[in-house]
Amino acid sequence: MQKSITEARRVFDVAPFIADLGCKLEQLESGICHASIELTEKHQQQDGFVHAGVQATLADHCAGTAAVTLIGDHQMVLTAEFKINLLRAAKGKRLVCKSSVLKPGRVLTVAESEVFAEDENKKQRLVAKATVTLAVMNKPQIEDQ
Amino acid sequence: MQKSITEARRVFDVAPFIADLGCKLEQLESGICHASIELTEKHQQQDGFVHAGVQATLADHCAGTAAVTLIGDHQMVLTAEFKINLLRAAKGKRLVCKSSVLKPGRVLTVAESEVFAEDENKKQRLVAKATVTLAVMNKPQIEDQ
Amino acid sequence: MQKSITEARRVFDVAPFIADLGCKLEQLESGICHASIELTEKHQQQDGFVHAGVQATLADHCAGTAAVTLIGDHQMVLTAEFKINLLRAAKGKRLVCKSSVLKPGRVLTVAESEVFAEDENKKQRLVAKATVTLAVMNKPQIEDQ
Amino acid sequence: MQKSITEARRVFDVAPFIADLGCKLEQLESGICHASIELTEKHQQQDGFVHAGVQATLADHCAGTAAVTLIGDHQMVLTAEFKINLLRAAKGKRLVCKSSVLKPGRVLTVAESEVFAEDENKKQRLVAKATVTLAVMNKPQIEDQ
Repeated sequence: MQKSITEARRVFDVAPFIADLGCKLEQLESGICHASIELTEKHQQQDGFVHAGVQATLADHCAGTAAVTLIGDHQMVLTAEFKINLLRAAKGKRLVCKSSVLKPGRVLTVAESEVFAEDENKKQRLVAKATVTLAVMNKPQIEDQ
Repeated sequence: MQKSITEARRVFDVAPFIADLGCKLEQLESGICHASIELTEKHQQQDGFVHAGVQATLADHCAGTAAVTLIGDHQMVLTAEFKINLLRAAKGKRLVCKSSVLKPGRVLTVAESEVFAEDENKKQRLVAKATVTLAVMNKPQIEDQ
Repeated sequence: MQKSITEARRVFDVAPFIADLGCKLEQLESGICHASIELTEKHQQQDGFVHAGVQATLADHCAGTAAVTLIGDHQMVLTAEFKINLLRAAKGKRLVCKSSVLKPGRVLTVAESEVFAEDENKKQRLVAKATVTLAVMNKPQIEDQ
Repeated sequence: MQKSITEARRVFDVAPFIADLGCKLEQLESGICHASIELTEKHQQQDGFVHAGVQATLADHCAGTAAVTLIGDHQMVLTAEFKINLLRAAKGKRLVCKSSVLKPGRVLTVAESEVFAEDENKKQRLVAKATVTLAVMNKPQIEDQ
């Protein structure tokens, strides 16, 4: 397995907030990451839909992991900014995210995430789309972008 | 207390994901909402910083609550989209968010959130800024924006 | 020809700023709009590249025109917000934009635009990607969103 | 006058698209840039309002100029991405933009722009707000971010 893929897997799994949210890595290859969350009541906002913050977290983390598959040793990524459109009120059994790198770069990598809500029949419906800009940096320089 | 302020307080407190994250409402007035999170290990990403998803969730929910203070009875808000810039790698004791409505509207309300990381000496540093677009709608029409 | 397609063509062509910029409608169908600009010196920023504002204008207008193909009579769209990532410094003979509706809605429509720089050999390179949120409204209510 | 202020003035004035649009530099100091456009018919979209692309161009260029006041010799900025909320349909005599740097950085600078429409009585109304992320780079490395 490629070193950057191994590192991407580590980055995905080692983040405490991602584990706490129940995010599960589904697929990982060069420039691509898929992940999912089994939805429970804890993921909801005030009206019973999946909280935008859950969708945003999954979209951001999955995009970052896709970016990590394309960086060098001794490098890391940090989200510089992201934008997410919540297209429909989301509910269902599972949230599935499919992220891919739109443009890798030495300094900035841009990735996109599509978030789907999956019902009990495994039917998926696009509920959110995000664009994520990631700063690529050498491992010690993380304090200040 | 104004009805919309009461409703905003309810919206803030009743969301399961917000309770799970440990978000606490700090201040609420017409068009303004402040909130905070006591940071623990569970809020971290892979390198020990506060996960962008935690910052985004707080920024989005706090902005939405600010928007609710300005809507009518029988109305609700749903995030249509948001964009967040992560300005610095965030760490500290507490995350504090200050949201205010930039432009209320009949159909769309735009709010801004500033997120600060607070250290053990209560010194705050701006770590993220978000712009949140909220769809204002009557309570039954939530399926489809 | 469908009425909304005719209206979309009118919207594209009648905007003075779009004519001034030299934007040309290339393709129009339900939910899709392609357009282009022959690049001249006037489209440049300070270093000889295509100004981000030119790319943004084309991305926004082309997305709005794609949205108009899907609205009803007596309706119009107004851009509520957009976000654009400039992926590479852009230069070439022509700027080509391909927009499509990601999610049509009664109140909000979300469209995406991909902007390509085309060289003298007609080779296209993706230089920008935008997500555009459009407010759909009845023709008189335009003062305030 | 500080060298970076001189360079910022040059960047503002030398961009052909900015001159073509009629943008005028109003104020320039460390981290701050104000600019304006006298509105004519050419700046309009299909319904007689100021085109979102005009507002976006002014917001982006003014933010970039504010960023240039804070960079070193032999450095330049290039817009990495921006997001703009169009808060109201804009019309009037003049468009005024006030940009300031939210967070300067070695690699990325984030600036904000507020765009106002000014009527014949010089009354200003906020019509748009943008957040702009700028890549700071050494002068030769501009091909690829």
